[in-house]
Amino acid sequence: MKKTLITLAVFSIYNVAYADEGMWMPQQLPQVAKQLKADGLKLDPANLTKLTEFPMGAIVSLGGCSASFVSPQGLVITNHHCVYGSVAYNSKPENNLLANGFFAKSLDEELPASPGSRVFVTKEVTNVSSKIIDKDVAKLTGKKRVDAIEKNSKAIVAECEKDAGHRCNVYPYYGGLEFYLIKQMEIRDVRLVHAPPEGVGKFGGDTDNWMWPRHTGDYGFYRAYVSKDGKAADYSKDNVPYVPKFYLKLAKEGVKEGDFVMALGYPGRTNRHRLPSEVAYTFDWNYPAFVKSSGESLAIIAKETANDPDAKLKYASQVAGINNYYKNRQGMLDSYAKSDFLARKTKEHEELKAWVNSNPARVKEYAQDIAQVEQLIAKRDAEEKSDFYLDRSFPRLLNSARVMYRLANESAKPDAERKAGFQTRDLPRIKAGIESVERSYAENVDKALVLNNLKQYAAQAKNERNADFDAVMGIKDGMSDADLKALLDQMYAGSKLSDKATRTAWLSSKPADFKTSDDSFIKAAVAMYDGGLKREAHEEELAGNLQQAYANYMKAKIAFMQSKGKAVYPDANSTLRVTFGNVAGRDHGTADGLAWSAFTTVDGIPPKATGSGEFNAPAAELAAIKARDFGQYADSKLKTVPVAYLATLDITGGNSGSAALNSKAELIGLAFDGTLDSIISDWDFNKANTRSIQVDIRYILWNMKHVEKYDRLIKEMNAE
Amino acid sequence: MKKTLITLAVFSIYNVAYADEGMWMPQQLPQVAKQLKADGLKLDPANLTKLTEFPMGAIVSLGGCSASFVSPQGLVITNHHCVYGSVAYNSKPENNLLANGFFAKSLDEELPASPGSRVFVTKEVTNVSSKIIDKDVAKLTGKKRVDAIEKNSKAIVAECEKDAGHRCNVYPYYGGLEFYLIKQMEIRDVRLVHAPPEGVGKFGGDTDNWMWPRHTGDYGFYRAYVSKDGKAADYSKDNVPYVPKFYLKLAKEGVKEGDFVMALGYPGRTNRHRLPSEVAYTFDWNYPAFVKSSGESLAIIAKETANDPDAKLKYASQVAGINNYYKNRQGMLDSYAKSDFLARKTKEHEELKAWVNSNPARVKEYAQDIAQVEQLIAKRDAEEKSDFYLDRSFPRLLNSARVMYRLANESAKPDAERKAGFQTRDLPRIKAGIESVERSYAENVDKALVLNNLKQYAAQAKNERNADFDAVMGIKDGMSDADLKALLDQMYAGSKLSDKATRTAWLSSKPADFKTSDDSFIKAAVAMYDGGLKREAHEEELAGNLQQAYANYMKAKIAFMQSKGKAVYPDANSTLRVTFGNVAGRDHGTADGLAWSAFTTVDGIPPKATGSGEFNAPAAELAAIKARDFGQYADSKLKTVPVAYLATLDITGGNSGSAALNSKAELIGLAFDGTLDSIISDWDFNKANTRSIQVDIRYILWNMKHVEKYDRLIKEMNAE
Repeated sequence: MKKTLITLAVFSIYNVAYADEGMWMPQQLPQVAKQLKADGLKLDPANLTKLTEFPMGAIVSLGGCSASFVSPQGLVITNHHCVYGSVAYNSKPENNLLANGFFAKSLDEELPASPGSRVFVTKEVTNVSSKIIDKDVAKLTGKKRVDAIEKNSKAIVAECEKDAGHRCNVYPYYGGLEFYLIKQMEIRDVRLVHAPPEGVGKFGGDTDNWMWPRHTGDYGFYRAYVSKDGKAADYSKDNVPYVPKFYLKLAKEGVKEGDFVMALGYPGRTNRHRLPSEVAYTFDWNYPAFVKSSGESLAIIAKETANDPDAKLKYASQVAGINNYYKNRQGMLDSYAKSDFLARKTKEHEELKAWVNSNPARVKEYAQDIAQVEQLIAKRDAEEKSDFYLDRSFPRLLNSARVMYRLANESAKPDAERKAGFQTRDLPRIKAGIESVERSYAENVDKALVLNNLKQYAAQAKNERNADFDAVMGIKDGMSDADLKALLDQMYAGSKLSDKATRTAWLSSKPADFKTSDDSFIKAAVAMYDGGLKREAHEEELAGNLQQAYANYMKAKIAFMQSKGKAVYPDANSTLRVTFGNVAGRDHGTADGLAWSAFTTVDGIPPKATGSGEFNAPAAELAAIKARDFGQYADSKLKTVPVAYLATLDITGGNSGSAALNSKAELIGLAFDGTLDSIISDWDFNKANTRSIQVDIRYILWNMKHVEKYDRLIKEMNAE
Repeated sequence: MKKTLITLAVFSIYNVAYADEGMWMPQQLPQVAKQLKADGLKLDPANLTKLTEFPMGAIVSLGGCSASFVSPQGLVITNHHCVYGSVAYNSKPENNLLANGFFAKSLDEELPASPGSRVFVTKEVTNVSSKIIDKDVAKLTGKKRVDAIEKNSKAIVAECEKDAGHRCNVYPYYGGLEFYLIKQMEIRDVRLVHAPPEGVGKFGGDTDNWMWPRHTGDYGFYRAYVSKDGKAADYSKDNVPYVPKFYLKLAKEGVKEGDFVMALGYPGRTNRHRLPSEVAYTFDWNYPAFVKSSGESLAIIAKETANDPDAKLKYASQVAGINNYYKNRQGMLDSYAKSDFLARKTKEHEELKAWVNSNPARVKEYAQDIAQVEQLIAKRDAEEKSDFYLDRSFPRLLNSARVMYRLANESAKPDAERKAGFQTRDLPRIKAGIESVERSYAENVDKALVLNNLKQYAAQAKNERNADFDAVMGIKDGMSDADLKALLDQMYAGSKLSDKATRTAWLSSKPADFKTSDDSFIKAAVAMYDGGLKREAHEEELAGNLQQAYANYMKAKIAFMQSKGKAVYPDANSTLRVTFGNVAGRDHGTADGLAWSAFTTVDGIPPKATGSGEFNAPAAELAAIKARDFGQYADSKLKTVPVAYLATLDITGGNSGSAALNSKAELIGLAFDGTLDSIISDWDFNKANTRSIQVDIRYILWNMKHVEKYDRLIKEMNAE
């Protein structure tokens, strides 16, 4: 033991283990090349900027989740919670795939993923800022500006999508200061290949969600299928596995503490560039309201599905989703309560304003927009606040009716003039949504959820309510809970949209058909239509003004940061990003005196396993652990199989399933979660607390080989 | 942030945090000077070998606990659990010092510590091996050898103790291979100066004992008093504070992770040089039996004192002691069950034998004794096993009677011929023990404890029982529990020794007085006397043979280790030792995925505080924490007051109260505990798990200044 080194190392514990902020756009990586190299990357950072080469070419989006190709036959690895909907979709009371897992033994046994499942392969990213905000648009304000941006965007998208089988989108960056066109191959025939039993894939359930120590085997496999000529196509028996240009190779050597790690994926949304007033609104009002509402919804679903396993299964995915955000928002609120975030944010904003005001040219360029953005935000937040319960008081089928009536109206226009989201390109998604209602809907549950929100909506003062909605629903001041329930009963009873054939028939109906319907939800949708458009126009007026002012505020902020020598990465916006750092425990845990090891291991599973519920580890797994049947998957240091590990990565929702790669870009695991005391990082990056949680690829392989004796995919991934 | 350093440091986490084995005799320190320096010691290691200079001169023993002088007025700092008996002794139902703490505001208010309390200041350590095992003794075996060793030892001690006010002892090292004479000034007037409330000093109680995270303020203060001319003396109002030649200064700078730390104290006993057969006996039979018996005793005391606060107070100290060992032994058993200790020990022993057998000279020197020691150990262990319940079946006052009768008999001889332990020099200790019985005795509790053991003793086969004891007690085969209880009732009823005056009168009685007494315990003591001497002689015969063989076995072992280039420190034997290492958390805790931070802080107290029982943190402390009234005692990194910290020190029972010193030998805390998964280290040093727990001097000072507003001692220690 070299004492000098050790002393240094012990001493250094306080210096390490700081999370690495930055969700970098691949093209920004050369800016941080030095840091990447220092952290341990062995590839040329420039390689990471090339989206159609290795390794970026192997990274895909599932729309909401991240994933990657891991074989030349289009095998896709992602999180269990990302394939959860497809497992539930194929699960039946007599063949409970959620409980038992799913193990396709051949291509023939692979099952269609839930409707609407997609694999998006990014092909091109183009800066279109000057095409979106061209000279003419730059002069516009309000709704006109929004409409012009939408028009430009739709034209660019339409041009891009002429390449059949591709989906193109224009994404705003830096709050609308920049725009990028992202072209993705949209693979529509996605099949479920393998998911472990819930007792592995969701081990720990909601109890362990956002928690460390963690023992969740959060992995699952899809396969992308295409037509025989290699094009994206609807599901067909004749389709064949997609052959990706690049796929990830699995690391032969296990990852260990201190190792370089990067995660490539599609983080959904962060709010690090928000203004102080937005922070105050969110943490003082919006999140507390959201947490309260989510708690109520969970209790209602639990109660309504208590004796109905079928309904319980239908709502399983929604419950998981609500629980996830419930814990997430509460975690943020807890961190916020302990932090000086708002004061700091306010100070930073004041500094920015002082910097602007200290120079006449900057005053001229930015001052008015900075003042303007603050006023507009206040207005927007006030409106959002009064609509909080309104937005939650629509029966699900009324929403379906509104979508279909809007579609019917938009469909009467030439495609290019239709509202974004209702163009020809959007039809499959809308159709899938309307068709699959049954999978996740039970009237009693829906009605109970709506009633709960409706009561709180109806309790608002009349001027805070929506006149159209009041009229349609028959809501008046001072109604009792029983009155409201009676209104809902009547409305639900008056609709046949819960019948699938009846409902889907409306997808091809004309506006006139809607207008003469006596279906209660259809009638309500029609009655609210004009008001809805007006409301939309009003929101767009505000949005247009906000976009313009916000973009200029961001421009000022970036200039200010650059004046201090700091590079700025854009907030997450569901586009491909790279985050890098190291595998690292934490010198502090959540209880005083406890810290976090970098790894959990299978040895931690038996003490947690209860034999049922959230901690129902499969008997075969417990037996393999007891027998210490670890094979090549035992870590040489830990002497057991690692399950999950912590890393100093900057991830958020949407990163789920992101490939965690080592310094040679070999797959070492999948990011699947953060920790409760660090999710405030979505707003305020917390260097000391932030850790991402990855499932170790060795646990995945060990489970398949030593527990499930399912080595088909191991062979396919060439990871024997 | 320098990335390269950080990566290295993260990577190094696995290399650090290994505990530093070694309870070094001060004179051995030059052997490890290089390591001391590398760990960070700023003093010359040679200074640490000088027992009568700084800092060693400030280190004292309380007999069972370690302590140190911290002022020029004889102020002694040690653990709360080391002054616990004195707090309990001075505690009364109407003035519960245990609960409220004790705060002497001046010398006048300082209270006598419990009878028998001592402060031992080590003055000289002399190697007397060749005087103890001189040429003549070397030829002897069995009881004759024991007697001769005792005779030589007594002569040396008597010579040494001619210096009045000193206590001298000859301690065997390396299992009797070496002997050292230790001369200590024995300060007999010890007074209680300050103890925090139990809610601080024993916060966490038995629940947290041996545990981390830990929030126990385990500190208390004594003061050593001497006669006006500076000599050790019995308590007197005229006595004055002792002026130590050296005392410790408190560190001005807080200790932090990675810092050098050493603990100076008197570790009681370790068993690292034991033979495989001793390991097997201890872990397969003795400790399990001990744990079972302790559990029974705790339950009995709890039941018998349930409605008797006075008895509960009397037994508080014993309960603490039993609980401590109960948890300790169980912890060792748990570690043993998971370890390959016995196999490893056996292998090492086989290697030693192979090394001996590979060389004719070594065979001649060691082989017979190694074979012999194994046989003798087997014999000793078998006898100890059959006496396990016998030893626990003596009523406490019967033991008092036996001690007093032995004393009466020994007192008839010239002092030098008396049995060690019954010489004139031993009288005050014996007297104090006999006089203070009331403080910790209640007949119903004692009887219930004895009955429980007696039942198990009586259930042994007749040849496994003790004939004398059976006769005295009236025990026969097949007695029922009720029969045994009746025997005890009769015996307790037949004695007046529970009356203090009656009991202490026997201290000055002659053997003839005992022989004519009709007190049941005195009669029993007389009846068992001859048999007891025979048993003692038999044990001494065995002990003499064992000593000789064991010493030679140790000689072989040391030679073997030296042949492999390894230095050997002796097992702990209640003499002054030095252990050094670093402040360090642990990369693994007790649950998978959790690790240990190096520090706990006051922020961890409110979440544990229950307002009563073991976690009854004082309201004033909770208020100060809430108000973040931390003053200068907040750690600059932690931003709060540290309570305890972990270090890689090698300590054991007896080290309680040991001064923890920084690289400049300034006081940074007090060692007070180890952790449950590392106490197996008493037998088998566990590098990865072993951590000592220290209370941080800043917590002690903060409590006094900011919570108790008691700054008298802070001023005295010049630590303002």
